[in-house]
Amino acid sequence: MTADGPIFLPQGFKFSSASAGIKTSGKPDLGLILAEPSASAAALFTRNRIVAAPLEVGRAALAKTGGRVRAVLVNSGNANCATGTKGVRACRIVCAALARELKVNASEVFPSSTGIIGVPLPTAKINHKLRSLAGGAEPTVERLRQFSEAILTTDSRPKLDSVPLRSGKASITGIAKGAGMVHPQLATMLVYLLTDIVASPAELTRALRKACEHSFNLISIDGDTSTNDTVLLLASGQSRTKLQAVRGEFERALIELCRSLAEQIVRDGEGVGHVIRLQIEGAKSRAEALTVARTISRSLLVKTAWAGADPNWGRILAAVGRSGVPVDPRRIIISIGDQKVCQGSSACAFDQTRAHAELSNPESRVTVRLGRGKASIEYLTTDLTSDYVKLNAEYST
Amino acid sequence: MTADGPIFLPQGFKFSSASAGIKTSGKPDLGLILAEPSASAAALFTRNRIVAAPLEVGRAALAKTGGRVRAVLVNSGNANCATGTKGVRACRIVCAALARELKVNASEVFPSSTGIIGVPLPTAKINHKLRSLAGGAEPTVERLRQFSEAILTTDSRPKLDSVPLRSGKASITGIAKGAGMVHPQLATMLVYLLTDIVASPAELTRALRKACEHSFNLISIDGDTSTNDTVLLLASGQSRTKLQAVRGEFERALIELCRSLAEQIVRDGEGVGHVIRLQIEGAKSRAEALTVARTISRSLLVKTAWAGADPNWGRILAAVGRSGVPVDPRRIIISIGDQKVCQGSSACAFDQTRAHAELSNPESRVTVRLGRGKASIEYLTTDLTSDYVKLNAEYST
Repeated sequence: MTADGPIFLPQGFKFSSASAGIKTSGKPDLGLILAEPSASAAALFTRNRIVAAPLEVGRAALAKTGGRVRAVLVNSGNANCATGTKGVRACRIVCAALARELKVNASEVFPSSTGIIGVPLPTAKINHKLRSLAGGAEPTVERLRQFSEAILTTDSRPKLDSVPLRSGKASITGIAKGAGMVHPQLATMLVYLLTDIVASPAELTRALRKACEHSFNLISIDGDTSTNDTVLLLASGQSRTKLQAVRGEFERALIELCRSLAEQIVRDGEGVGHVIRLQIEGAKSRAEALTVARTISRSLLVKTAWAGADPNWGRILAAVGRSGVPVDPRRIIISIGDQKVCQGSSACAFDQTRAHAELSNPESRVTVRLGRGKASIEYLTTDLTSDYVKLNAEYST
Repeated sequence: MTADGPIFLPQGFKFSSASAGIKTSGKPDLGLILAEPSASAAALFTRNRIVAAPLEVGRAALAKTGGRVRAVLVNSGNANCATGTKGVRACRIVCAALARELKVNASEVFPSSTGIIGVPLPTAKINHKLRSLAGGAEPTVERLRQFSEAILTTDSRPKLDSVPLRSGKASITGIAKGAGMVHPQLATMLVYLLTDIVASPAELTRALRKACEHSFNLISIDGDTSTNDTVLLLASGQSRTKLQAVRGEFERALIELCRSLAEQIVRDGEGVGHVIRLQIEGAKSRAEALTVARTISRSLLVKTAWAGADPNWGRILAAVGRSGVPVDPRRIIISIGDQKVCQGSSACAFDQTRAHAELSNPESRVTVRLGRGKASIEYLTTDLTSDYVKLNAEYST
């Protein structure tokens, strides 16, 4: 699943984008999704206690409308986070201006922002572009692709994918962005999922929670949970197919789509050299497996060993040991690719060259068996390279 | 306090070192401390569930002798960790060989190892050197300095310091090593504290716990807790001054010494460009302050910003937000040096150039006020540089 596959256009949505000058590069930094006449909505937000202004405004808007959305307005280049009450006011000003343009209620506009933290949102620059943005919205794949580019920050490429229901009755299309501060607790960065199925906000929320748990909650790039994480699922209802009639199929399709977007995010992680498919098996519970996966995926020593394609299983074992899970070292088995490298708390005889070669691939598999139970997860994470450090150490990014 | 200050020689200890060929560089890799006739001992070990063989053997030895030590045998170049039951046997073989040489019980030998994880301990190489090692032991500062060099791994310099009791009645001298896998939960890497005070193991343990809490537990280099962390405090009793007679002074001196060694470890952290003195104030409890400090000190985005001397307070705020402490963003105040940079969850007007200059110093101060209570801590941590990544990404380190 990649952004290069066919993109389906769920009925009931139009897209638009513009360059408002928020990004100093002059690249597109404003994106709009119109749901006409409107869509049911479900949203999940970051668990970070520091929450950006658009998340506060968006959450309040969804509560007010009972989960109806007419427009999604996204800017990149500015996160409108840690901007105090002025930031909330700025977000409301922009939503109200777009609502006037579209002749809808301000609470029917769902706002998102991504970019630098702590800088006031340039409302005048955004408002200046709203008329042409609204006027230019079209229900085409080309406009959808332009939208997916307008919401990027340090991302090197857009992330999108589509999954049609096998019954052909409806489809789901998703657009995401995110390359750093990716260690989602509930959602990741900005993700927009669009479908033309008929569903209530409650039905959408249930499906969305499940899909996130099996996708965005199983990835980590740098261990930092963003302040702006948002996943929004909109259903236009225009396929006339009811979610309840195809629930199993819809939920599977949504998980598949979210996994595709999550993988695209990890592959495009800041400075990423290698993607690691980390399999945690034999845990007592899913939560326990997740704790081990997150501890390993946050270990600088493990991540730098991966950067050097070094089959240094001792660092992985040490990370498991400090995860807080009461493991018995003698029962742990660690494999790199198809080779066991550690068992019974000591080294196996393994082919170092082959393990090195495995870890030199763009993507490789590392498996940790805890020997405690039957729960398992697959977690997607990355190495830590000098490029990551350079990118994030540059002054005033 | 630095390793360059005067080093006092507590009465009752001799030191020795040798090159046994465990390190491929041929540098000294074997160190010995003799306590004659013997010393009371207290030890703290890593909280990592994966525990190296010498820690198991040393813990059992202390239990068997009721806290008496005749000799401390340390090798660098090999951690003897994740080496299974063979590793424990190898450790016992070496301790028994030294015990025969010294004509003491094997349980009076306290072993330590530091270096690579998962490689069998070369017992023959070590045993071969034990006679000359034991024979060469002398109660001189020169031999003590040689010991402090023989226990180093990726450290660039030895770490030692002395604190005489102001009453002149006894002294405490400490030797430490550690540059990576430093995020102690109870102790850090290898630390040997020697005093000639008269004290029971129980008295020493109490003083040691307190001192570690205010020193090694307040530092982090890379967020990885080692499998070999050991802090050992030995009291020869030869000053004839009883600990109970000078308890306050002894405890203060021990804390001062441990802080000095902890700071030396952080300054010599792998690839460290800048040391950050992180002040957490206004927490509800010390534990809460520690949680916030550890989350900030583990954030790759914060650490890379520090590497670039970037006063990017948004990343610090985001880390506080995901720490799990229920902070109110509006009450948080962040300062860099003496300048407030964030208050009321938005930016203060501050001099960027001055903040950049402050963070360009080898050591700088960052203060986070949570506005929740009266607890505070000072935590010592580091930036994350490309040098760290390069050092740890090299194949087969």
